[in-house]
Amino acid sequence: MDDRLKRQLAFILEIDKEKNVFRQTHLSGGGRAENDAEHAWHMAIMAWLLKDYANEPVDVAKVMMMCLIHDIVEIDAGDTYAYDPEGLKTQQAREDAAKERIFSLLPDDQRAELIALFDEFEQWSSPEARFAHSLDNLQPLMLNNSNDGADWKAHGVMARQVWGRQTQTKLGSEKLFEVTEGIIRGQIEKGNLPE
Amino acid sequence: MDDRLKRQLAFILEIDKEKNVFRQTHLSGGGRAENDAEHAWHMAIMAWLLKDYANEPVDVAKVMMMCLIHDIVEIDAGDTYAYDPEGLKTQQAREDAAKERIFSLLPDDQRAELIALFDEFEQWSSPEARFAHSLDNLQPLMLNNSNDGADWKAHGVMARQVWGRQTQTKLGSEKLFEVTEGIIRGQIEKGNLPE
Repeated sequence: MDDRLKRQLAFILEIDKEKNVFRQTHLSGGGRAENDAEHAWHMAIMAWLLKDYANEPVDVAKVMMMCLIHDIVEIDAGDTYAYDPEGLKTQQAREDAAKERIFSLLPDDQRAELIALFDEFEQWSSPEARFAHSLDNLQPLMLNNSNDGADWKAHGVMARQVWGRQTQTKLGSEKLFEVTEGIIRGQIEKGNLPE
Repeated sequence: MDDRLKRQLAFILEIDKEKNVFRQTHLSGGGRAENDAEHAWHMAIMAWLLKDYANEPVDVAKVMMMCLIHDIVEIDAGDTYAYDPEGLKTQQAREDAAKERIFSLLPDDQRAELIALFDEFEQWSSPEARFAHSLDNLQPLMLNNSNDGADWKAHGVMARQVWGRQTQTKLGSEKLFEVTEGIIRGQIEKGNLPE
């Protein structure tokens, strides 16, 4: 087998580990925590179905691939909860080291291509990146909404924290931010999210 | 919220259930069974990375979406093991009913679009469908190879059964079939797959 294919297969086998990185979000029905691979799968399908709601035209294949790989660094760096200020301080350094190790398994051109996609997402620097972030916010919000805000309750999250993160959804999609607003206001009214 | 968006969100929440459909394949390291959403996520990334090995040029976004949705019917129909002849007899009827119910949650145009993609995959009727099948075969083969054929051993699967299914990989990718051949021959040599 040639070296290029060997490296591609090594990367593909390595990222199997993402299925063991569990998030704070629980599946709809509340049974168990969701893992990063499942979250990314869900986001990529959302990208295809909801692409017309992006604020700017997007290359849907690029959004999908961005969604699929955006959490790969968590294989080494672990999941950092969006409302955990201590974890957020060290997140960058942990994820940089992971990015270098994991994407370097690939042939050089694909290493560069995936790192560029990953960085673009992290830097919100394109319509695709901003739309992918809208999906990254909306997907767990939908699950948590279906579970009466159980994940917020478990962490004592307040409405202002959720607003702080979720208002960024409008950078990628004004339309999906309307959904976000509806969900948050509904959860506040139900008493699941203290103001 | 308008009806179109409402239907899209209903579908998106419904398919969360795919994360609870477990397959016969185990994750690399053998810890637990893989679920359909994880399998589809893995395939879609493979589609992007390995697209140059398709026998014919492919629209990669189409292959990725095909990979992402190809098992959605199993939410109702369950996973049918590739080497279970009894299950295979009733698979079509179970999956047809599921296809109708689940995709009909979507707006009509997207219902038609996803059913067309799903059918194209099932009928092997395009370069994208044939390549997606190559990935659908190779992905669990790679995991099982990393686990010394444990999934075959658990079901008493013989080499001829594996060859029967896996030779179809060459319809989508001659190059990936070389990988397939190498894996199967290696597992036979190791005594993990009886001839």
